[in-house]
This record gives sequence, C-alpha cells and structure tokens, in this order.
Amino acid sequence: MDAMMMDAMSKDMMSMPGMETMDMSLLQACLDACSACEQACTVCSTQMLSCAPACMNCADMCNTMMRAMLRMQGMTPATMMAMLDACIAMCQQCMDECMEHADHSDVCRMCAQSCKACMDACSKLRQSMAAAAM
Amino acid sequence: MDAMMMDAMSKDMMSMPGMETMDMSLLQACLDACSACEQACTVCSTQMLSCAPACMNCADMCNTMMRAMLRMQGMTPATMMAMLDACIAMCQQCMDECMEHADHSDVCRMCAQSCKACMDACSKLRQSMAAAAM
Amino acid sequence: MDAMMMDAMSKDMMSMPGMETMDMSLLQACLDACSACEQACTVCSTQMLSCAPACMNCADMCNTMMRAMLRMQGMTPATMMAMLDACIAMCQQCMDECMEHADHSDVCRMCAQSCKACMDACSKLRQSMAAAAM
Amino acid sequence: MDAMMMDAMSKDMMSMPGMETMDMSLLQACLDACSACEQACTVCSTQMLSCAPACMNCADMCNTMMRAMLRMQGMTPATMMAMLDACIAMCQQCMDECMEHADHSDVCRMCAQSCKACMDACSKLRQSMAAAAM
Repeated sequence: MDAMMMDAMSKDMMSMPGMETMDMSLLQACLDACSACEQACTVCSTQMLSCAPACMNCADMCNTMMRAMLRMQGMTPATMMAMLDACIAMCQQCMDECMEHADHSDVCRMCAQSCKACMDACSKLRQSMAAAAM
Repeated sequence: MDAMMMDAMSKDMMSMPGMETMDMSLLQACLDACSACEQACTVCSTQMLSCAPACMNCADMCNTMMRAMLRMQGMTPATMMAMLDACIAMCQQCMDECMEHADHSDVCRMCAQSCKACMDACSKLRQSMAAAAM
Repeated sequence: MDAMMMDAMSKDMMSMPGMETMDMSLLQACLDACSACEQACTVCSTQMLSCAPACMNCADMCNTMMRAMLRMQGMTPATMMAMLDACIAMCQQCMDECMEHADHSDVCRMCAQSCKACMDACSKLRQSMAAAAM
Repeated sequence: MDAMMMDAMSKDMMSMPGMETMDMSLLQACLDACSACEQACTVCSTQMLSCAPACMNCADMCNTMMRAMLRMQGMTPATMMAMLDACIAMCQQCMDECMEHADHSDVCRMCAQSCKACMDACSKLRQSMAAAAM
C-alpha cells in the first residue's frame, strides 16, 4: 500500500468512532501481510495437495480482510475484531495443513510462512484494538 | 445451489472430522442466504448512501463465507464457527446502517432484509454446530 | 436475484448511455448463470482433479462478471462486452477441462453443464448488445 | 510477490503449452500492478464520488486477473489474452472516471495513476504474448 494512500486513509479515520486511536503502522503491516498471504495461498492451492481447500479459503478470507481494512468506514471496532478473529483462525488452519507438506514442497513451506506472518500481524492489530477499547 | 451438487457435497462431508453431523438443510439455507445477501449488498453499495462501505464489506464477507461452505474440506468446525461469527457481525452492521435509509430507499430496505435473513441463517447453523460439539 | 431488486436496477439503467435498450430478461438470466457457475466451479475445484485451477479461475471470473452486472453504473457497453468475452472464454475452457472427467465424476459433469449454461447466457447477452450498438 | 514463489511458478510454466516463452519479468510487473490497482480502487470506491461503481468493478477485475496469473495452469494463452483485454478495458474506464476528480481528490488522482500503471503492465504482457504466438 502506497504511503500517500495510507496517509489519506489515516485522515479519514480520525472521524470514525472508536477508530481514532488505530495504530496505523500495525494496520499497514496487517494489510501487507493479508495481501502477501492471499497470493501465497493462491499459488499453493494449485499444487493439488491436501491443503488446497484450506488455501483457497484462506486466500478469500485474507482478501476480504484486506479490503475491509481499506474501507474502514464500513466497519465498527466490534465488527473488525470479529473479522480479525476469523482471519486468524483461517491462517492458523492453513499454516497447520501446509506445514505437513513443508519438508517436500517449497511452495507449502513459503505458504505456511505467509500464513504465520498474517496470523501474527492480525493478532497484533487485534490486541491493540482490545487494549484501546478498555 | 443445485440439489445434485448438495448431494455430492453431503457425501464428502461424512469423512470430515466434526462435520459428520452437519445439518445439510441448515447449510443449504445458509449458502443461499449468503449468495442473496452478496447480491443485494452489491446493488445497494452503488447508491452512494452512507451504508455503501458496510455493504461492500458485507458482500465480500458473504461471498467468502459461501465459498468456504462449498469447500468444507478446507475448514475445521472451529474455523467455520469463527467465520460464521464474522459474517453474523458484518450482516448485523450492514442491516443497521441500511435500516437508517429504509424509509426512503427501496434498495436499502431490501438489502436490510437480505442481511437479516443471512444473519439468521448463519446464526442457526452456528448454534447447531455448537450444540453438536457438546 | 429478487424481482423487486431487478426492478430497481432496471430503472437506474434508463439513464445510462448505451444501456437503455438492455434486455433485462437476458441480463437476469446471465446474472443467475454466473452465480450458479461460480458455485459449481467452487465445489469442483476441491476435487483435486486436473481441472481445479481452471475451475478456480472460472469461479472468480463469474463472480466478477456477476458483480459488475449488479453495478451497471460502473461499466460502459464497450467495457461490458470485453468482460463478457473474458467470461465466455473462461467458461469454455473450464467446460472443456471438466468434460474430460465427466464420465467418472458427477461433480465435473455438473460443473461442465453450469459452465455451458453460463457461456450461453453470456453469449446471448453479448450478441444483444452488439446488435443494439449497430 | 516473493522472488522464491515467482521462481516456483516459473518452473511450473515450463510444461504448459504456449506458456513456455512467457516473459516472467513482465508477468511479475503485471501481478504487482493488479494488486496495487485493486487496493487503490478499493480505497477510492469509499469516497462516494461518481467513479465509485467503476472503481469497485476495477478492483474485482484486477483481483481476478492477479489470481489467474498466480494459477497459470488454469488458463490457456487464448483465455489469458481475453482476460487481459477485459482488465485493460476496465482499468481504462476507471482511470477516465477518476481523472475527472483528480483536481480536487488526491485519492482519485492516485487511483487513476494505479489504473494507468495496471493498464500499461497488462498491455505489455498482452503484446508479448501476441508476438510469441506468431
């Protein structure tokens, strides 16, 4: 995500209830991790290994999460936290399934790394929101 | 969703851990409600009313939920419940925002009804899974 | 797609240059065929047969086509014809690949039928637009 | 897209009819441009300007194009060229509509630039494929 575009988004968020304190660097890291994870899962799903259905689900969930973060006007903090929980769960499952093939498939190993990175980025953002809500 | 296709899916699910007891009529109702909600939200988002970003988010989440239910091999019961929770939250928010325009926009009123129907179908499926897990 | 929602869309299209003469029954048939094809391809892609990558591409293209037809304000007739051509090409390819497995997979046979129906519905709509443009 | 993942994709393509001569640097540039364009269009669509429906269509088409290029096994050269044509047409339209607001909206100006970059990257890849097919 381009720095100027993030800047424009950041200004919009000042006027959204409960979003004023959003950590923009965590948000940007999460956006980038979702985008990378969608791409890795899409490649991995073409390998016809047992992880393929989980990879397809994970690619869709990461794209939906990424887009929703690019349209913060369309989420409340509560909705966003529920979406992040779903994305974390889906990345965890996809990572677990790809790890079973990581020894003999480079693509699965890279996909599992992308899932791990996305899960971590979503979790950090989720925790910062939960802390801000207290 | 075609009856023969649902039948093929149903057979596959017999061998998925925790999915054997899935209520196929609730699943089919949920699939259909997600599909209808994606379409209504997509139309509603073009009206340039304040609900548009929520409608776009809801359309994406409903599509992701629908596709994941068509690829049950790629979800565990726990992952599916997290996804259903996110879909329920997003439908609730979109319904609330569209209801504010329901008096003067037929499209918003229809979209709110689709969101309500999808929220209810997801909730029923979610509850049946929680009950089966006990 | 709900009849009342189609009616609301139809009214909007009266004011779009080059869209006034759109045959709404062909448009509705095309919308429904894209939706059904996305669902069939999504199920078929989980079978781990050689058609899976084409099925995933076809599911995405059909969803993109369906959504664009629900947001006619965002297309010109020329753009819409290019999108229909891409959807026709993708459905044709997916049908051809699934037909190779139609003898031993019910899901592939049903998917090929959905691709054929979608290809035909897109082609009819495409031809009616080309005729109107003359 | 990660360099190691591109490398894995590149190896797969050696065995796909008509894809052996694909220029991997043009493919990577096109993937990256589609991803950036999807993101810019998604942000731009939340501004409630007249370009919003075109932005939503363009975001979906760019995502579908990007994913299809990550699953080259699921395209023939002919299908891929039809998809690229559709993506080029959609980017052109979105750019034209956003340019009308470029003077008073930074986001529209950035979105138009992303559409232009994506259109150019798709066109270059399209031309290299047409040349290889001769």
